[in-house]
Amino acid sequence: MSIESLLDVPLVDHHCHGVVPKDLQWGEFEDLISEAFAAPAKGTSHWDKPTGLSIRRWCAPLLDLEPFTPPEAYIERRLALGAEEVNRRFLRASGLEALLIDTGNAPERLADVAAMAKLAEVPAHEVVRLESVAEAVASKGVSGAGFADAFAEALQAASERAVGLKSILAYRATLAIDTTAPSKGAVADAAGRWLREIEKTGECRITDPVLEAHLLWCALERAREKGFPIQFHIGIGDPDITLHACDPSHLTAFFIATEGLGVDLTLLHCYPFHRQAGLLSENFPHVYFDVGFILNWVGPSYARIMGEALELAPFTKQLYSSDAFALAELYYLGAMRFRTALKKNLDAWIGEEELTASDADRIIEFISRGNVKRIYPLPEGA
Amino acid sequence: MSIESLLDVPLVDHHCHGVVPKDLQWGEFEDLISEAFAAPAKGTSHWDKPTGLSIRRWCAPLLDLEPFTPPEAYIERRLALGAEEVNRRFLRASGLEALLIDTGNAPERLADVAAMAKLAEVPAHEVVRLESVAEAVASKGVSGAGFADAFAEALQAASERAVGLKSILAYRATLAIDTTAPSKGAVADAAGRWLREIEKTGECRITDPVLEAHLLWCALERAREKGFPIQFHIGIGDPDITLHACDPSHLTAFFIATEGLGVDLTLLHCYPFHRQAGLLSENFPHVYFDVGFILNWVGPSYARIMGEALELAPFTKQLYSSDAFALAELYYLGAMRFRTALKKNLDAWIGEEELTASDADRIIEFISRGNVKRIYPLPEGA
Amino acid sequence: MSIESLLDVPLVDHHCHGVVPKDLQWGEFEDLISEAFAAPAKGTSHWDKPTGLSIRRWCAPLLDLEPFTPPEAYIERRLALGAEEVNRRFLRASGLEALLIDTGNAPERLADVAAMAKLAEVPAHEVVRLESVAEAVASKGVSGAGFADAFAEALQAASERAVGLKSILAYRATLAIDTTAPSKGAVADAAGRWLREIEKTGECRITDPVLEAHLLWCALERAREKGFPIQFHIGIGDPDITLHACDPSHLTAFFIATEGLGVDLTLLHCYPFHRQAGLLSENFPHVYFDVGFILNWVGPSYARIMGEALELAPFTKQLYSSDAFALAELYYLGAMRFRTALKKNLDAWIGEEELTASDADRIIEFISRGNVKRIYPLPEGA
Repeated sequence: MSIESLLDVPLVDHHCHGVVPKDLQWGEFEDLISEAFAAPAKGTSHWDKPTGLSIRRWCAPLLDLEPFTPPEAYIERRLALGAEEVNRRFLRASGLEALLIDTGNAPERLADVAAMAKLAEVPAHEVVRLESVAEAVASKGVSGAGFADAFAEALQAASERAVGLKSILAYRATLAIDTTAPSKGAVADAAGRWLREIEKTGECRITDPVLEAHLLWCALERAREKGFPIQFHIGIGDPDITLHACDPSHLTAFFIATEGLGVDLTLLHCYPFHRQAGLLSENFPHVYFDVGFILNWVGPSYARIMGEALELAPFTKQLYSSDAFALAELYYLGAMRFRTALKKNLDAWIGEEELTASDADRIIEFISRGNVKRIYPLPEGA
Repeated sequence: MSIESLLDVPLVDHHCHGVVPKDLQWGEFEDLISEAFAAPAKGTSHWDKPTGLSIRRWCAPLLDLEPFTPPEAYIERRLALGAEEVNRRFLRASGLEALLIDTGNAPERLADVAAMAKLAEVPAHEVVRLESVAEAVASKGVSGAGFADAFAEALQAASERAVGLKSILAYRATLAIDTTAPSKGAVADAAGRWLREIEKTGECRITDPVLEAHLLWCALERAREKGFPIQFHIGIGDPDITLHACDPSHLTAFFIATEGLGVDLTLLHCYPFHRQAGLLSENFPHVYFDVGFILNWVGPSYARIMGEALELAPFTKQLYSSDAFALAELYYLGAMRFRTALKKNLDAWIGEEELTASDADRIIEFISRGNVKRIYPLPEGA
Repeated sequence: MSIESLLDVPLVDHHCHGVVPKDLQWGEFEDLISEAFAAPAKGTSHWDKPTGLSIRRWCAPLLDLEPFTPPEAYIERRLALGAEEVNRRFLRASGLEALLIDTGNAPERLADVAAMAKLAEVPAHEVVRLESVAEAVASKGVSGAGFADAFAEALQAASERAVGLKSILAYRATLAIDTTAPSKGAVADAAGRWLREIEKTGECRITDPVLEAHLLWCALERAREKGFPIQFHIGIGDPDITLHACDPSHLTAFFIATEGLGVDLTLLHCYPFHRQAGLLSENFPHVYFDVGFILNWVGPSYARIMGEALELAPFTKQLYSSDAFALAELYYLGAMRFRTALKKNLDAWIGEEELTASDADRIIEFISRGNVKRIYPLPEGA
């Protein structure tokens, strides 16, 4: 492998979701290139943003269209090819070695792990979302006092074949909560309050900081048993987050408390806190990070973000993820932008005599797949 | 229009102040190229900063001087030409289509809306500062219980011919306050406390978070009626702000609460939180932002800031503002830096085959004036 | 002097520590290229990070090795030359005019001020760490009521020949504390609690916010008397900090409270808050900043950080520091990266006709040594 052949290094995407297996009409596709919960502002289109531009430029050719195809023609062609063909083309062109799939968000609308493996023609593994397990437990009916045991049991079952767990604490209680392990009594009380609220409102959504802290400590125990990492949503997301409270340095006390446990923690996305994440990955041996999601979404600005991610962090602590969700285009753009970003930055370093080609290869191998394969228990050959 | 002719696209400056209509002596000019409240540190001059450099480089030629003219010669020439001629030259060279003027800061020292329109030879419109209206109400004498009605009435009158409102909450109570609409009783109590304090101290400056929240909700009602936006000071400012509390993501709950109201919110300046602002403009259909002020003040570093502003935000959500205050040079520098920044970044994208010239034109039109004209109720032809 | 001869401008390093005077074995050296408190993650080496790369690329030649020498050969050669020769080579190649040395961190392991002066062949001066003085007072035995006087006396004695004081408030109580000067009674109470805790635990580490605020106000008094600045740890550090609470804008109220006192405050490191620090240095005449530590640690990414540091701050307010600690390589890398970063950025400005060579020289002189020499009471010729 050499920096020239970077495009051939297969990637292990350690955080993505499933694709939508069905055809997407005009408005459905447009909705999926936005993180907003609402329609675009009057007189505007979601296509007029960097991701829209990237899709027209880089994805159109994979559907046999000219670069910069207008949105209408793009959607027309997409429908003509059919969802399965489109999904297959983009996933297979992404140059992947394996996919790690978060199954906790909208599983009813998305391809499952097996379907993703088939579409991409590479092994796919599950990452289990803590909050989804907790909410399933709560909606099945349990007492406040029985919640902790029921959750532990459900987590064990759900993660039997998983390769990691994921926390969306950032969305639910913010990263600014007290992450100290709560007492049994405190958990039972908090669970009781939550269950009564579910009964009253009919809505089942975990947001209580005591319960969230409890989930983390259960996750640590399970992760230790299974030898797999826990992923954390960090930084950028949809309107449900409060961005300043998703700065990963809010987790510093948690990182200190967990340093000796033998469990790796991976910080997802991180933008615009990727510099903070890089420092944390330097300060704590068990902390890793990626700049997923953002590389697909910033369009032509991808190289700057990667440049910042490469500033301070050990080369052994950055990972690859696309955070692609629903649209096959995003897996392809994630992989393409990641590779080009890495190549541009490392080429510049080589040009300034700051790096040799063989050191560049070493860095590429680490970040593209080596670091992921070192910390996740992936089966041989995947 | 094409990217080659970017310099000819007229700009709508949606946030600026008035110029000083009188001649400025050495020390007066130097004071105005600093945001500090104090004289420069002993042994230093405010000219030794990026803005000072930009004025010597780019503004000197408009006064018939060589680029990089020393400060003394610059001020001498400025005085020889006279304030009116200097103001006219810079404003007319800025290539503007219209000016939206915040009349709330130091109106006694600055040209008013009509005078600005005359100097710039383009239509000028007023943006009314909420806090100025509230302070005028309080200083005219009112009871705590009567404050809410008096303010509503005064706001209605003050904004009759305005095209927007502006909040300087960031300066007065920080963006980190509870922005829930307070009850009538709470407003009356807070107003009562404030009015007693004014009586005691003789100082009339609104800083109470309850009153500030009340102002916002009155502003929303008025903005809805008039179909105009509310502007928010965000990020960078003078020593009166506490920067971390001016991160626009502190307003997330307010954005959620106001999403359905049909009122647009525009985030001003934003540096160093322009990435955060870009994400918020993506997450919320009614949120817009600009990178005003900073492009004039960072001197040769302007292109990087614009590059970051272009990363994530929809092209339909960024606006142009100079935030120029007092010095005619700042309107010109704002416009010049904005155009060059946009051109440099979009040219680079075109060079990397990420953008076509016609897509570039579309983006230029959006950010230079199209977005502003879509959301502000400007009369035809302005 | 001209921008071509930038490499010849001697630097005044206003913040560094001492070198380790003894030979460093493999593991000892590796520990010192990490800010973590723990061994590298299993399967990784601290050499695989940007600093490791810089040492192999830029430091190896000073030990008569090829660029990109592998780590093992580097350490072998380092041992063969011996610590004293290695330390002398790097320090003398750094092109320094003077060193300002923080003696508060691990003095038992590091060369002292006199030894550093001898190794570097330039004058070296002491900066006294407030917390070290306070902890020495507490461990010698004092009453809660007697602490304030004992500390004042000890600070006076310790700083008799110093050129500045340093606060590590950021590490101990965060920058987010109330920095109002506490009352005598409050200080006595807090000191009493602390002293009882020392007696109970045997550990002597000041972290109480009231005591930390008291230290600051004692420091201000002493700094005023001596005409020297107070340095503040800001931003990046080891796992002991909580990064978001090290944003310098948390000190805004303290800056406002101290603006008229005639004492300069210097913000150290600042990454990733160097933009915030730049703004604060613009807003407050007595606030200065540097981007020390990070330029050595980010490897090939140094120029971007300096570019951001040059965006907004007056050229009269940025300082040079290496923040080198223990390894002679870091003094050399600090100086080399700083010079190259400044040259790259200013050359780019000249290339874009934004700067003349003589203005560049003026900026280089300010940031390399002029600003430091203006605010620190260094003896003539140093």
